[in-house]
Amino acid sequence: MADRVYNFSPGPATLPLEVLKTASKDIVNFKETGIGLIEISHRSREFMEVAENTESLVRELLEVPDNYKVLFLQGGASSQFFMIPMNLLGDGKKASYLNTGTWAKKAIKEAQLFGNIDVAYSSEDSTFDHVPKDGDYSVANDSEYLYFVSNNTIYGTQFSSMPQSEKMLVCDMSSDILSKKIDVSRFGLIFAGAQKNLGPAGVTLVIIRDDLLDRTPAKTPTMLTYKTHAEKGSMFNTPPCFPIYVMGEVLKWLKRMGGVEVIEKYNREKAALVYEQIDSTDYYRAHARDDSRSVMNITFNLPTAELEAKFIAEAATIGLNGLKGHRSIGGCRASIYNAFPKEGIDKLVTFMREFEQNNPA
Amino acid sequence: MADRVYNFSPGPATLPLEVLKTASKDIVNFKETGIGLIEISHRSREFMEVAENTESLVRELLEVPDNYKVLFLQGGASSQFFMIPMNLLGDGKKASYLNTGTWAKKAIKEAQLFGNIDVAYSSEDSTFDHVPKDGDYSVANDSEYLYFVSNNTIYGTQFSSMPQSEKMLVCDMSSDILSKKIDVSRFGLIFAGAQKNLGPAGVTLVIIRDDLLDRTPAKTPTMLTYKTHAEKGSMFNTPPCFPIYVMGEVLKWLKRMGGVEVIEKYNREKAALVYEQIDSTDYYRAHARDDSRSVMNITFNLPTAELEAKFIAEAATIGLNGLKGHRSIGGCRASIYNAFPKEGIDKLVTFMREFEQNNPA
Repeated sequence: MADRVYNFSPGPATLPLEVLKTASKDIVNFKETGIGLIEISHRSREFMEVAENTESLVRELLEVPDNYKVLFLQGGASSQFFMIPMNLLGDGKKASYLNTGTWAKKAIKEAQLFGNIDVAYSSEDSTFDHVPKDGDYSVANDSEYLYFVSNNTIYGTQFSSMPQSEKMLVCDMSSDILSKKIDVSRFGLIFAGAQKNLGPAGVTLVIIRDDLLDRTPAKTPTMLTYKTHAEKGSMFNTPPCFPIYVMGEVLKWLKRMGGVEVIEKYNREKAALVYEQIDSTDYYRAHARDDSRSVMNITFNLPTAELEAKFIAEAATIGLNGLKGHRSIGGCRASIYNAFPKEGIDKLVTFMREFEQNNPA
Repeated sequence: MADRVYNFSPGPATLPLEVLKTASKDIVNFKETGIGLIEISHRSREFMEVAENTESLVRELLEVPDNYKVLFLQGGASSQFFMIPMNLLGDGKKASYLNTGTWAKKAIKEAQLFGNIDVAYSSEDSTFDHVPKDGDYSVANDSEYLYFVSNNTIYGTQFSSMPQSEKMLVCDMSSDILSKKIDVSRFGLIFAGAQKNLGPAGVTLVIIRDDLLDRTPAKTPTMLTYKTHAEKGSMFNTPPCFPIYVMGEVLKWLKRMGGVEVIEKYNREKAALVYEQIDSTDYYRAHARDDSRSVMNITFNLPTAELEAKFIAEAATIGLNGLKGHRSIGGCRASIYNAFPKEGIDKLVTFMREFEQNNPA
């Protein structure tokens, strides 16, 4: 077996090795049933326990209040871009959006199909190198909600604190959910594709305040109505069983690690090591403005595109994989979600130092 | 490790053991990359190969003509119930549906949100114990398509041959796709949730004739537009990587078995053994009419509900699991898709014979 590499991929992303090993066993024979995990009926007692356990770990680790539903949906975060306005807006209703990157922009495009969208702020003119502070924008009085992306995977920016607004918050937390403590009660709806901090691709976590379930306009397809899934515990139809199971195992791992507060500290330490290396000379330049730097995705440039290509290729030869930046901004990106180990950070920082010495600008 | 049991679950359903074993290995370290299958970027060369390979096996095994797109979507077959009319109908347009069971009925309900739906036939009055023959119904001249469910999982009925109609056929093949030879060119669209004949829950196969991609009305959300996925090879957003991978492994297994013609013969032999046992005395009674019996899901009753409960419970003690019928008709059901081994059928038939002897009516 090849040695395990450090995988800086932005998503699907590295998972705890112990979770992979457990999944590996359960796939062939789940809980000594003589049936593999991916063959077992979603209505079986064994799988129902998996789904219930995953939900209760989400509730416990994120401290989700009782008046919120926790849903496991399909279609990726991209499907929430339209489901949210489809369910929460209605003819002529308004919502405010903060345009802080590719995923925010896509969400705005879909929302415009369902309501009057007020783009309260955009950092597009500066290549999305920052997120706004509270005073930088105002939210229309008649908006139903304020939508934002808490961490921008592609540009490496993150809200260091959640917007202070009278409006109900709706947030795409795909790339930083469960990486730090949040106050769920300030949100109407939180969603996250699993494949960064939660598990494998194929399931989307949605946390929705239960009074919002009654807003969906008539004539919305059954499967696109949040209430359908809320009423059936995400079992209206066959759920994506395997991704839900893996999410549960990742959450068990997170709990063993000490929970969200412990991982938050660990994440800050990991990111600080990379940013310190970036800031120590002029060789590496961070894409994000200082006040908007992400703890999850660190985007940076080298003196030239040629050096960046060499950096990425050489890193891969020593087991540091997936450091290429997104095609929309180029450069390098180190995605270091919860499950990314500090040992990999140490190795990256050492490599950055040596690469700079060996390849002067 | 507990002995492997025979799993008659209607879906998620039994998969080839060799597929489970391969998945078990790849999950921890995929193709010696040092990265597990469920952590690897969907844009990596390794995963792109998986997706391309899965698509080409679908094309090869089903003999899909070149003017059809093969898509891997999320949301289950249930999401196709609304996506089909949302994309293919438009204001005032009509489509004809055959109401042959629970899933057809649900599809009709969603279609009514998008067009004028003509229910050309219904077997609901006889508890969906049969599917219609060609002469039993007529299709409205102005219908855009004729929709039907080729195999009704819950009631155990199946079209022994596809409807002969001038109209474009649209078919839910969730529970019999790749179990027998079909002529794809007669269909406008075929779809199937994976968790019966194709793999684990979490991916839906859609095969769509490419001229239909331009019918979608403006203002349809991007993720709900077939063309979005067709143009990006099902990679517009992060796809359900693991279910697509397992589907590929199941298709490789099917090819090694000899392909669709060989499995069709095998499936007929398996089903015949159970139906022969049912027909040999009056003790067991098939739910489906003779001309509509399913090769995939065999639904039957015993003399009393008490005997049925005893039958199901005793079967489970000897490793015959999941024989309980769906709550909407009760009784017993043996779901025996492609991957269900003949050895399990022999064991079931022997058990049926002995149970009858030991438990006279």
